[in-house]
Amino acid sequence: MPQRLLIPFGGGAPSAHHLGKAHLGGKGANLAEMAGIGLPVPPGFTIPTTLCALYYEAGARLPDALLAEMVGGLAHIETVAGMEFGSATNPLLVSVRSGARVSMPGMMDTVLNLGLNDSTVEGLASRSGNPRFAWDSYRRFIQMYGDVVLGLDHYLFEDALEILKDDKGATLDTQLTADDLKGLVAQYQAIVQKETGKPFPQDPRAQLEGAVGAVFGSWRSERAAVYRRLNDIPEDWGTAVTVQAMVFGNMGETSATGVAFTRNPATGERAIYGEYLINAQGEDVVAGIRTPQYLTLAAREQAGAKAASMEEAMPDVFAELARMFAQLELHYRDCQDIEFTVQEGKLWLLQTRSGKRTAKAALRMACEMVDEGLIQTDEAVLRVEASVLDQLLHPTLDPKAERKVLAVGLPASPGAASGAIVLDSETAHTRAATGEDVILVRLETSPEDIAGMHAARGILTARGGMTSHAAVVARGMGRPCVSGAGGISIDNDRRILRIGNRELPEGAIITLDGASGEVMEGRVATVEPELSGDFARLMIWADGHRRMKVRANAETPEDCTTARRFGAEGVGLARTEHMFFGADRIVHVRAMILGADETSRRAALAKLLPAQRADFEAIFRIMEGLPVTIRLLDPPLHEFLPQREAEMEEVAAETGLSVAAVKRRVADLHEANPMLGHRGCRLLISYPEIVEMQTRAIFEAALAVPGGVEPEVMVPLVATRRELEIVKAIIDRVAGEVFEAAGRSLTYHVGTMIELPRAALRAGEIAGAAEFFSFGTNDLTQTTLGISRDDAGRFLGEYVDAGIYPRDPFVSLDVEGVGELVQFAAERGKAARPALKLGICGEHGGDPATIDFCETQRLDYVSCSPWRVPIARLAAAQAALRRK
Amino acid sequence: MPQRLLIPFGGGAPSAHHLGKAHLGGKGANLAEMAGIGLPVPPGFTIPTTLCALYYEAGARLPDALLAEMVGGLAHIETVAGMEFGSATNPLLVSVRSGARVSMPGMMDTVLNLGLNDSTVEGLASRSGNPRFAWDSYRRFIQMYGDVVLGLDHYLFEDALEILKDDKGATLDTQLTADDLKGLVAQYQAIVQKETGKPFPQDPRAQLEGAVGAVFGSWRSERAAVYRRLNDIPEDWGTAVTVQAMVFGNMGETSATGVAFTRNPATGERAIYGEYLINAQGEDVVAGIRTPQYLTLAAREQAGAKAASMEEAMPDVFAELARMFAQLELHYRDCQDIEFTVQEGKLWLLQTRSGKRTAKAALRMACEMVDEGLIQTDEAVLRVEASVLDQLLHPTLDPKAERKVLAVGLPASPGAASGAIVLDSETAHTRAATGEDVILVRLETSPEDIAGMHAARGILTARGGMTSHAAVVARGMGRPCVSGAGGISIDNDRRILRIGNRELPEGAIITLDGASGEVMEGRVATVEPELSGDFARLMIWADGHRRMKVRANAETPEDCTTARRFGAEGVGLARTEHMFFGADRIVHVRAMILGADETSRRAALAKLLPAQRADFEAIFRIMEGLPVTIRLLDPPLHEFLPQREAEMEEVAAETGLSVAAVKRRVADLHEANPMLGHRGCRLLISYPEIVEMQTRAIFEAALAVPGGVEPEVMVPLVATRRELEIVKAIIDRVAGEVFEAAGRSLTYHVGTMIELPRAALRAGEIAGAAEFFSFGTNDLTQTTLGISRDDAGRFLGEYVDAGIYPRDPFVSLDVEGVGELVQFAAERGKAARPALKLGICGEHGGDPATIDFCETQRLDYVSCSPWRVPIARLAAAQAALRRK
Repeated sequence: MPQRLLIPFGGGAPSAHHLGKAHLGGKGANLAEMAGIGLPVPPGFTIPTTLCALYYEAGARLPDALLAEMVGGLAHIETVAGMEFGSATNPLLVSVRSGARVSMPGMMDTVLNLGLNDSTVEGLASRSGNPRFAWDSYRRFIQMYGDVVLGLDHYLFEDALEILKDDKGATLDTQLTADDLKGLVAQYQAIVQKETGKPFPQDPRAQLEGAVGAVFGSWRSERAAVYRRLNDIPEDWGTAVTVQAMVFGNMGETSATGVAFTRNPATGERAIYGEYLINAQGEDVVAGIRTPQYLTLAAREQAGAKAASMEEAMPDVFAELARMFAQLELHYRDCQDIEFTVQEGKLWLLQTRSGKRTAKAALRMACEMVDEGLIQTDEAVLRVEASVLDQLLHPTLDPKAERKVLAVGLPASPGAASGAIVLDSETAHTRAATGEDVILVRLETSPEDIAGMHAARGILTARGGMTSHAAVVARGMGRPCVSGAGGISIDNDRRILRIGNRELPEGAIITLDGASGEVMEGRVATVEPELSGDFARLMIWADGHRRMKVRANAETPEDCTTARRFGAEGVGLARTEHMFFGADRIVHVRAMILGADETSRRAALAKLLPAQRADFEAIFRIMEGLPVTIRLLDPPLHEFLPQREAEMEEVAAETGLSVAAVKRRVADLHEANPMLGHRGCRLLISYPEIVEMQTRAIFEAALAVPGGVEPEVMVPLVATRRELEIVKAIIDRVAGEVFEAAGRSLTYHVGTMIELPRAALRAGEIAGAAEFFSFGTNDLTQTTLGISRDDAGRFLGEYVDAGIYPRDPFVSLDVEGVGELVQFAAERGKAARPALKLGICGEHGGDPATIDFCETQRLDYVSCSPWRVPIARLAAAQAALRRK
Repeated sequence: MPQRLLIPFGGGAPSAHHLGKAHLGGKGANLAEMAGIGLPVPPGFTIPTTLCALYYEAGARLPDALLAEMVGGLAHIETVAGMEFGSATNPLLVSVRSGARVSMPGMMDTVLNLGLNDSTVEGLASRSGNPRFAWDSYRRFIQMYGDVVLGLDHYLFEDALEILKDDKGATLDTQLTADDLKGLVAQYQAIVQKETGKPFPQDPRAQLEGAVGAVFGSWRSERAAVYRRLNDIPEDWGTAVTVQAMVFGNMGETSATGVAFTRNPATGERAIYGEYLINAQGEDVVAGIRTPQYLTLAAREQAGAKAASMEEAMPDVFAELARMFAQLELHYRDCQDIEFTVQEGKLWLLQTRSGKRTAKAALRMACEMVDEGLIQTDEAVLRVEASVLDQLLHPTLDPKAERKVLAVGLPASPGAASGAIVLDSETAHTRAATGEDVILVRLETSPEDIAGMHAARGILTARGGMTSHAAVVARGMGRPCVSGAGGISIDNDRRILRIGNRELPEGAIITLDGASGEVMEGRVATVEPELSGDFARLMIWADGHRRMKVRANAETPEDCTTARRFGAEGVGLARTEHMFFGADRIVHVRAMILGADETSRRAALAKLLPAQRADFEAIFRIMEGLPVTIRLLDPPLHEFLPQREAEMEEVAAETGLSVAAVKRRVADLHEANPMLGHRGCRLLISYPEIVEMQTRAIFEAALAVPGGVEPEVMVPLVATRRELEIVKAIIDRVAGEVFEAAGRSLTYHVGTMIELPRAALRAGEIAGAAEFFSFGTNDLTQTTLGISRDDAGRFLGEYVDAGIYPRDPFVSLDVEGVGELVQFAAERGKAARPALKLGICGEHGGDPATIDFCETQRLDYVSCSPWRVPIARLAAAQAALRRK
């Protein structure tokens, strides 16, 4: 039977898998592949995508030649399945599915049980011995066909069903009898007659022609057209149609249905894993009406279950299934998730796909498959989703422990922690100093809370999003954090945390799960992470395939040590302002800000110099031999001044100024939009003495480290080349002074953040004065999108839900908008200075999708919080492998 | 004498003006042009720019062929001037000047009096009868030559001069005698000998060769190289050198020097205007040591001066000068500003250039020159600088009136006004209602002050820049405003305005000059503007040459009326939020914001609907037949809520809520960076009921106007196409509802602001859902540059001074940065939708430089505050003419 317009599969038909998805559609290609390696797929045929155009050319009807070939196609199915289309005793039923080159939600999906009519339904009833099942299948078929092929409103059918249930006093569909359903079928047919003016088609071939035509027709439906436009899918791709025999697991005790994994998706163990039910349909396994049984004897025994495993109940079929597992893994070279049906003793595979798995399982499978020779290390690296590594790097709640959830906020920083509630940073610090575990609970956090956050085991805030101050700092510190927990409020006078109607006094124990956003009462047991073994092996493989370097955003010795432990290859961003909040520094910082003139500012800065120098020396020693990028002071000065009356009085006392003078200065420095205010290089240009002190501290510290350091000094918030030149001139001058005094010099680099749209656009000019660019994608996102990270919580969730942004643009870079600016900056900067070094140091530097984008832009490195360094290493390796 | 390597001019030498600036340099081309039309220019020659490369090729020395030709060039000068180079009795002195194609500050400029040596100085002394002048010229020459040709530090010479003055007890150079200066020359020569190891060159030809070589050498100096790099000037352009005879106006009573305008630069009157001095040098006229005399008899008599006018003292030379004025105007077709010298009865013109003039004079000259047939209307349009029109559109202070200046702030909005000080908006409103003129004085203004600002004659603020709220709103209203007057403070308890040590009680009269930023005591007389006559003629001409339309940003009936009077062709931006602050509305607005749910919000909005509809109807009626763009609600909601305790109590009473509830909502709505917060389309998406109310008001109003309106509904702050689609869907739906209820419909358009970098980048997509783009360059500048307009005052002045931005980027568009985004948006938008209408409605829409840029981007219209409409009309015409 020479085929031209349709391609059969199953029952030993030659595999057409080589024709690919472009020709067969996604579904058709998948079935062809399974059939091609000899798996027992229910037989069928695929009408390729090329026929879609012919359908429209013929005036939206099926070409006669195709109708002729469909006769042969059906014969192929009948022969292989041993059933007959339209037979009243042994009826063949088929499914009809659309299948474009890519999955397309705008199109018709599936019609099941096609072939049922008033006569074949009786055959199905007797063959299955289950008239209720037969009539239910029939009424479902009419509804589905009426909806997707005849274009009837599905409410018409649903209303009729509801009325019937009301009449019968039934609350569930399952309470309806075969006779009830038979009556419903009659009603459904009446609806079709009334609405279309024609009876429901009884001829299975007419049904099939209608369904195939409907699939082609759905390609040009409005919904599909909208979807194509939004996703840039050409209309001339067309859709394929796949017609396939239905098989039934509910044909008696020799029939069954089940799902299986070739390896354990929770642990990764190489053992058959799954469930099945005898005399059941697939939906029964999922619906939970009957308790599914284990596949293997071992699993049944381990669970202490009684119902026979498939290995025991159907030993032959099970053995066949087990053989297929080996075959599937050899072919797909990955753990497979399989749906199967046994119809009267014959095993059919309905679907196989790559099995979803936990992070731990993914790691184990990848390593073991390399050991088994199934895959190479590059494939192993691609097999573990980078973002899920996060689950492995932090303590997590013991899954067996009981949880009393009090509130749920945003999962802002992963990990789990328990401790006593404390309501301010000072208390956090004091109580933690005595060895107590504390959880810092605040309305929202600000830079003044850094010490308290560091002292705490975890952080909970009432306000703020995934990228609020609390979230960002907590991730950087590796502390679990739940932010924006809307249901909570804080009564500072009574020192009470209120959650709904509950009141928890300061000191009460709570537990946070930063991965789920849950806040729990009392202490919940946790499990420590394991960083050796499979994890270490995968990291080594990843490093071997990586092109981009991975650095950390770190400024404390603790963070730097963590960063090295996790494999960071340098510091990409040391934020010097965090050092200004230390108890021994803040007083001088404030004296500097409150200083009336340059002389008094210089006096205060002179007192800060030794502390800054010591900070830098500590970083340089830990990172010895690796590059360290230090960003000069960035935030607006008011961040260092208190906002509350009592604190202002303290500051007045410390600095010897009047309270009124302090208040005046605080008011003077107030800004309407501090993010866009007097900060970054603008501050450095206004107060060059700050640049001088910080530069001196950097170079004196660098000279003190014996192993050699190449400091990279980074100027923030540059929008014009001139700004960079002004600050660079000061850096170069002070460096010269330090070297002359020391009698020796060292190599250093001066570069800039690219964090404003203008800087990205004028990158060609700016590169003339910069040896490196570091993309500050947090601020670049804020300015490009015009969204304040601190305020975005009010609408960003809604925005992501509405599909306005596919993901939170502060978590994963907006490649279309912000990404184009990064591309401009990279291209223009490199054109002006080919040796320009490019990196990213925004929060996005630890996001796998963003890292992939960075690889396409040929960045030299990504920099992220220390705790995300392993994720970045893996993501960078995957990005490099994908570009090969 | 065939010339090849240098080009002589003057004395009837054939004009080489046609060779242009590229060959002759700016200076050389200008002299060639003057000489070419037969004006008596001191003779000289120009070595063209092409020789610069030859100089470098020859190893930084003058080619022998050039040296040979310079002999001939000098002979030409000697013949025409009737003096001899190096003569001890009748010495020719020359100037040597560099001249690139464009003016280049990085290069050597000029050496004067070249040719002086120990012998020729005596000749100059006897010829001028002024030995002191001769020796002073000689010592100045040595210093200049030493500095720019020999590369000596000019401090060496200045120190010697200072020591000499100390010795002689002289405080001014003029107190030194000829002998003193002769001694100084000897010292200067000793300095040259000591520093260079060689005596000061006595051979005038060696001096000339040295100076010409120095000009060429300066082309590759580091300063020139830096300047070229910054301004994109190719190095191979090279510089020309011009050598020209010096002439002297101090050679006795038949010599003189002066400056003249061909028309009066203050009034524009066609009459010779200028000053001269007999037996003097040019610098004497400027220095003010002697009082210059008038040129014409009429001017002398009018001024009641005694000293003879040139017309009387030198009638023949004056007649020659007067003849030349006619010739100059015919040739240059513009009013000329001339420097001349009479040396022993012979008139020489040293320079002619287009004369600077006042706005009034520019207008009169342009109109009269058209009447005279000297220029066409297109040239007349180009002759009046658009920005100076501002001076003509507002009342100005009588220039004769006395001013007691109390403080100086920023000239934030032009015009002048006097009135009683009032310290808050309510008082302004109350006192103005009684007919009193008041000046509103505030620390800074906010949207709540709108009514008070409107009631006041002028506004004075202590804080805020040129683009602060006060400045922007005042310009829009045509009220004079002085902002950021640093020296003032307000004592609200004592109701006193403090300026330095002065205390002015509320009610005291002050006067503001919004053009100079001055704040004056008492009432200073003003002069009303005249908008007919020359002004009206020029506007009509401008409109005839204009391509872009000019619209106004207006939302009150008063503004709309002003806009039409000034010739606006529509409303480009009606900000609906300004309407929300009216006394009858704000209570409903607040009730809407404080509403607990959609139902209560809808109830409040229903009460706002009639007011909004009336607002729109008023606008539509005034603008009948013209397009009106209405922007949906843009600012964050907290702008409508009070910030002070007492006001919150009022609001609580009005809305029936508890004070605590009001406070909580105010706190809830607080944003860290409101500019980047929950506003614009984000708000509209969160509260679709606001869109519904505003849309309903727009269309119901539009249907009520008989003449026909095509409303343009504008969605603010869009960053993605999806945002616009969501809001547009609501607009279209409500429009349909209104049309159905009314039984008729009208054409309307939906478009968006382009005011975020992402919107500009994704303009291609967004254009799919927008019929028009309006560039909101205020916000686009804020986001692209990362600068908050409200906070920029702290550093932007410093930034402009340091050359980081050439001008305030909120006043004149940053073409390099923001401009590129506008270009992307225009290109990508038009590519996706060729019929897309493009406009600009930011403050920049009234800035001539920005308007010129808009013409290059082929925008359809610019929109600006009503008071700037005439400026925009003129600037748009000029931009169109420049592109022809």
